Amino acid sequence: MKRKNISVVFVATLLAFSSVVKAQTVKSPDGNVVLSFSLKEGGMPTYEMNYKNKSVIKPSRLGLEPARDKHASKGLNETDLMERFIEMGYKLSSFDETWKPVWGETSTIRNHYNELEVDLNQPNSKRNIVIRFRVYNDGMGLRYEFPQQNALNYFIVKREHTQFAMVGDHTAFWLSGDYDTQEYETQISKLSEIRGKMKAAITDNPSQTQFSPTGVQTSLQMKTANGLYINIHEAALVNYPTMHLNLDDKNMVFKSWLTSDAVGNKAYVQTPFCTPWRTVIVSDDARQMLASNLILNLNEPCKLTDTSWIHPIKYCGVWWEMIASGKPWSYTFELPSVHLGITNYTKVKPNGLHPANTENVKRYIDFAAKNGLQEVLVEGWNVGWEDWFGHWKESVFDFVTPYPDFDIKYLNEYAHFRGVKLMIHHETSGSTTNYERHLEEAYKLMRMPVFRYS
Amino acid sequence: MKRKNISVVFVATLLAFSSVVKAQTVKSPDGNVVLSFSLKEGGMPTYEMNYKNKSVIKPSRLGLEPARDKHASKGLNETDLMERFIEMGYKLSSFDETWKPVWGETSTIRNHYNELEVDLNQPNSKRNIVIRFRVYNDGMGLRYEFPQQNALNYFIVKREHTQFAMVGDHTAFWLSGDYDTQEYETQISKLSEIRGKMKAAITDNPSQTQFSPTGVQTSLQMKTANGLYINIHEAALVNYPTMHLNLDDKNMVFKSWLTSDAVGNKAYVQTPFCTPWRTVIVSDDARQMLASNLILNLNEPCKLTDTSWIHPIKYCGVWWEMIASGKPWSYTFELPSVHLGITNYTKVKPNGLHPANTENVKRYIDFAAKNGLQEVLVEGWNVGWEDWFGHWKESVFDFVTPYPDFDIKYLNEYAHFRGVKLMIHHETSGSTTNYERHLEEAYKLMRMPVFRYS
Repeated sequence: MKRKNISVVFVATLLAFSSVVKAQTVKSPDGNVVLSFSLKEGGMPTYEMNYKNKSVIKPSRLGLEPARDKHASKGLNETDLMERFIEMGYKLSSFDETWKPVWGETSTIRNHYNELEVDLNQPNSKRNIVIRFRVYNDGMGLRYEFPQQNALNYFIVKREHTQFAMVGDHTAFWLSGDYDTQEYETQISKLSEIRGKMKAAITDNPSQTQFSPTGVQTSLQMKTANGLYINIHEAALVNYPTMHLNLDDKNMVFKSWLTSDAVGNKAYVQTPFCTPWRTVIVSDDARQMLASNLILNLNEPCKLTDTSWIHPIKYCGVWWEMIASGKPWSYTFELPSVHLGITNYTKVKPNGLHPANTENVKRYIDFAAKNGLQEVLVEGWNVGWEDWFGHWKESVFDFVTPYPDFDIKYLNEYAHFRGVKLMIHHETSGSTTNYERHLEEAYKLMRMPVFRYS
Repeated sequence: MKRKNISVVFVATLLAFSSVVKAQTVKSPDGNVVLSFSLKEGGMPTYEMNYKNKSVIKPSRLGLEPARDKHASKGLNETDLMERFIEMGYKLSSFDETWKPVWGETSTIRNHYNELEVDLNQPNSKRNIVIRFRVYNDGMGLRYEFPQQNALNYFIVKREHTQFAMVGDHTAFWLSGDYDTQEYETQISKLSEIRGKMKAAITDNPSQTQFSPTGVQTSLQMKTANGLYINIHEAALVNYPTMHLNLDDKNMVFKSWLTSDAVGNKAYVQTPFCTPWRTVIVSDDARQMLASNLILNLNEPCKLTDTSWIHPIKYCGVWWEMIASGKPWSYTFELPSVHLGITNYTKVKPNGLHPANTENVKRYIDFAAKNGLQEVLVEGWNVGWEDWFGHWKESVFDFVTPYPDFDIKYLNEYAHFRGVKLMIHHETSGSTTNYERHLEEAYKLMRMPVFRYS
């Protein structure tokens, strides 16, 4: 199934310690995408990108800003990884492999790119970083790599400063930038109109919090006046925060904006480390945006040896009744606050609207059985929904205790009898420490015959 | 074993909604300790305390300051729980019970106190709180209680403002206030000298971080010029941060200073809730400071039904070699950074100084066997000590993988053969999420015969 074709050219830079401006170019296998890297004056790493001789990304800066923290490699004397770089060398290589996804739209995927690795040194900090570009026929990915080295063992990313300079005032299909939720409706506007339309893009969904008046989410799909489709996103997002985009709407330059932790730090890095890929997909055919495998190719290969348990299914579920019909996840309206293991649900008045009840779920099971759906999802089956949201509450759910009106044993057996599986919903409510504590017992419950985890 | 004698007097305050200043007094069973509560002008809760007609605590304020947070009960309109209270009533009661500790210095402990419960209402916030005092022959405890109520379901403690106003410039036996470590040497000085001696009290221990130039730790032991011994501490510290003390050294008033989280919040409270007890032990006999059972009595009763596995032992251990002789916990000096599961310790050069090695621990086992010590503690036995500290590193230890020079199976068997148990050290390094993830496997390892957890 695999065919590989790798060629490598390594170019040692003879004038490594000079301040001469360097530039390298790498093209896609079909030559349509052209990516150029250069160190601008002051040792600033930049790149630009063209597609069929049209500019996609104008010259844009690259770099990161570590936090000045006493626990970083250089402590409070931490310096920026933004400029004063010299180029030590670069490598050009090609790669061509066809691989088989566990599941997906196609049985095989071709991973075919040309690569440029640029090795940079920042003499004042004695640090080496690598910027790697992979150029595909439908776009490119770039990432930062930090080899393990004495001057860079541990650092904290305060900000990443990857820029995507747009050529014009493109049409964008955007969601308001938000660390917590993608539950927005897609807005369509010129880039210059984002600021003006931001307020109207926000609903009364209490999960929504914006980080900037021109902040948008990735993936960001755009269309240019001269017929190009451009998508900015990321791949291989591992041990690093999600990248959003903040628009400088005077210059039409997007800058990476990472999800923050509580104190404003973005990532705690131990070298060797690679950031996720920053991806730009481009085409003059809108269909190629959906057909692209660029992000799948840049993701890490599957690490699981047994993937037999992964398979797509069709399901229906107790969910849209709440989302679309305003019914509650909760069992009662009487409890302003729930203490798991103490609150006695048999003593409260049911609200009578709770859709995750035995009779209703039985109806869904019958529907699934009749219509060839393999599973039935149930949300709101377990105790705790009365105060699950917005209280900094840690012990929100135990993932094993059903509401009094949800006969989990009976429903599991009934589903089994009808040839359907129950799909049990786990709502972490953002309380990951609580979820990790209950994982073991929660999964044991699902080892009852025919459960499936959602 | 138990004898109880409880009497309750409930006094409804007829003038509950007036602004008349109230005062209640409760004495210790022997009458020596006198505790008075009063609402000062503006509805400020205060208390004072005497011992044998000498003032121990001058009139001192009580109260808390919730954070103005969108997730608190009253959101950004959160109000202080410091003043504008009215007294709705109070209860006086007595309690006398003798109970049996799981282990300790005495086989039984008498819990004998008189109690004052003050029920306060803050009309502007529609909130009710309770301040409860328990007065013993050797001191008192006070705590705040928050009944569940619509106006106070969830709140965040920004600061607690419990004061302990000293009568004079007492002699204090103090440690620098620090959220992370008690690894300081005890300083002895007048209260007025703490500020001047703070710098010298701090060593180059990198764990040490001070929160205030006059901040000290609890328990704080003092001696007065007129022959009293006073100790300020806390009891029943559950779901709430440790209380330190910050000294106003102009007025000799200590104020509670709670350990903070990363964003400056102190506690995330869901009602009903009680804070820990704030304790003041007092005597004119220094020996009573150690003999006091006040804190044990104010702690919650043991919730375990099976306590047969809890028993005191004597042990020696591989620990002081590092603390006192400067030897390393680590196996090698070659690794500036460790990746658990990836770093190959068999390929690095041992530092040759690592005391947690098979031969040395065998020597300790022999010593323990010869001298009737039941267990041998070993620190530094497991991989990860090369970079365990000060890097915001989450995956620090796995608690199951020994260094190449520590033959855990052999040592376990050898200890068993000599009638001694190995006591395995778990260093969380503050990374509690990592520890929780490994608990299951770590405890499984200790189910090998004769291990014991430290």
